[in-house]
Amino acid sequence: MSSTMYIGVDLGGTNVRAALVDDAGHIHHIVKRESKALESSEIIIENLIDCITSIPNYQSAKGIGLGVPGPVDVKAGCMFMATNIPALTMFPLKEVLEKRLSIPVFLDNDANVAGLAEALVGAGKDKDVVYYVTQSTGIGGALIVNGQIVSGRVGHAGEIGNLIIDPHRASINHLNDGAVENEASGTALVRKAQTFIDPTITSARELFLLSETNEVAKRIVETMAYDLGVMFSYIAHIVDPDAFIIGGGVSKSSEYYLELMKQAYASKVHKPLANTPFLKAQLDEPGLVGAAMLPKSQGVI
Amino acid sequence: MSSTMYIGVDLGGTNVRAALVDDAGHIHHIVKRESKALESSEIIIENLIDCITSIPNYQSAKGIGLGVPGPVDVKAGCMFMATNIPALTMFPLKEVLEKRLSIPVFLDNDANVAGLAEALVGAGKDKDVVYYVTQSTGIGGALIVNGQIVSGRVGHAGEIGNLIIDPHRASINHLNDGAVENEASGTALVRKAQTFIDPTITSARELFLLSETNEVAKRIVETMAYDLGVMFSYIAHIVDPDAFIIGGGVSKSSEYYLELMKQAYASKVHKPLANTPFLKAQLDEPGLVGAAMLPKSQGVI
Repeated sequence: MSSTMYIGVDLGGTNVRAALVDDAGHIHHIVKRESKALESSEIIIENLIDCITSIPNYQSAKGIGLGVPGPVDVKAGCMFMATNIPALTMFPLKEVLEKRLSIPVFLDNDANVAGLAEALVGAGKDKDVVYYVTQSTGIGGALIVNGQIVSGRVGHAGEIGNLIIDPHRASINHLNDGAVENEASGTALVRKAQTFIDPTITSARELFLLSETNEVAKRIVETMAYDLGVMFSYIAHIVDPDAFIIGGGVSKSSEYYLELMKQAYASKVHKPLANTPFLKAQLDEPGLVGAAMLPKSQGVI
Repeated sequence: MSSTMYIGVDLGGTNVRAALVDDAGHIHHIVKRESKALESSEIIIENLIDCITSIPNYQSAKGIGLGVPGPVDVKAGCMFMATNIPALTMFPLKEVLEKRLSIPVFLDNDANVAGLAEALVGAGKDKDVVYYVTQSTGIGGALIVNGQIVSGRVGHAGEIGNLIIDPHRASINHLNDGAVENEASGTALVRKAQTFIDPTITSARELFLLSETNEVAKRIVETMAYDLGVMFSYIAHIVDPDAFIIGGGVSKSSEYYLELMKQAYASKVHKPLANTPFLKAQLDEPGLVGAAMLPKSQGVI
């Protein structure tokens, strides 16, 4: 093989997957394990190394990138906070893995690496500045500037779920009153559907289907579209990206709200911002591919 | 002189100033003219060139940067919109000046170049990612990542005056209902002071002084501090910069509200974001110095 190869690792609370990925973002081989997320750091690391070294020809990789579930101190190469993998909080992941594997290691959080993948080899591949938004159980995001993630001082760039859409909305949890995650995430949609329509509804997809015939469901979807439009207006005025990219499970049903959302967005921004492109995420494995793109984005070629 | 020299131009609706600036941001010579902002593009350009070429030894400059009053198409080198200098809307400023002066020319809007100056040689000089906010007659901002301005797809990065603090506030003008510029700018403070206290108040400074003894004035200032805190929470969740830098005329009175603003900010962000540094702008001439830094930031050395 002539192209430069990287290893991308998607470390989650349940599973860890590692893949050999070429510099065009094509996946050549995937290995999957349980992540042993509640074990000690020693066990988690041995398991992680076993997963990586199970990839045939893993030594050919010029760099390893990890997408992890929480905010990352990119310079130190550790997680500031690892709610799902407690032993990795402030654990020197980069340092330990580099010592063991003798390959440069980089990490960033899972939403950020997914955004990087879409920016480099997905929907945003011809754009300089991209803001990726994932709408799933929660709402998160990633800012990519000139092919590099802006991870943030404390790894919180893209923690957009806490943006306030309307401070007079209900107080739901630890997030701000009126936080967009409590209004427009998959979890929020299910909560509203259960409260106002039918307590047996368990997915956003059910709500979307119901919105074709049920007025209350339709209004919940319309409100969500509006709230997302407001959230995008904030990002536009602060960053004015070349494109928004929308991913995550809920966005797979975006035909139910994309146009309404764009209208709401356009009504809240200065006119030239109104036609910022909204692009659908394109990649099947943004987490693995984006993790593999981390070393490349940091100059390892 | 041994350091690399640049020319920075501050083109405003009333005056144009050009300065010879070294790569450390020190100003060596300033020339000032009326900007003839309402004349034809030919007259404006001749006047601009006369201003630049009046600088002794202007030919020694490796590049020329212009800060202009409106959103800029950085790649094309023209202003998308030039309300104060109508003839320059979509006029090929970069191309025409380069042809005439045979020196590389760059432009960006005035808030962005001020932010660049503070990021490179001012309050943020040791920071990678800086968000500059200017609180003056209006509210504007600039995102600087690794020494470069993120100007935006349509030059609107930093148009934060239109961010919605509370959609239930009054409708004032073309901005969004509850836009922060209508709540916390110098203009907004004077409007509120005139409405609720005394129609003869003409400056934010008067309101601040009055807030030491007058309860209504105090409440106006407290509300402004809160609103700014909310605005900064948006920027933090979207970008998580290494520092906020606060400049502009109103911010010269920040002793009246900085602590309250920080408290409001901290109450609206995830805990690790609460201690993002708020730095006061340091430079006397951020517009001139930042304009001069544009060529350097784009690789002209």
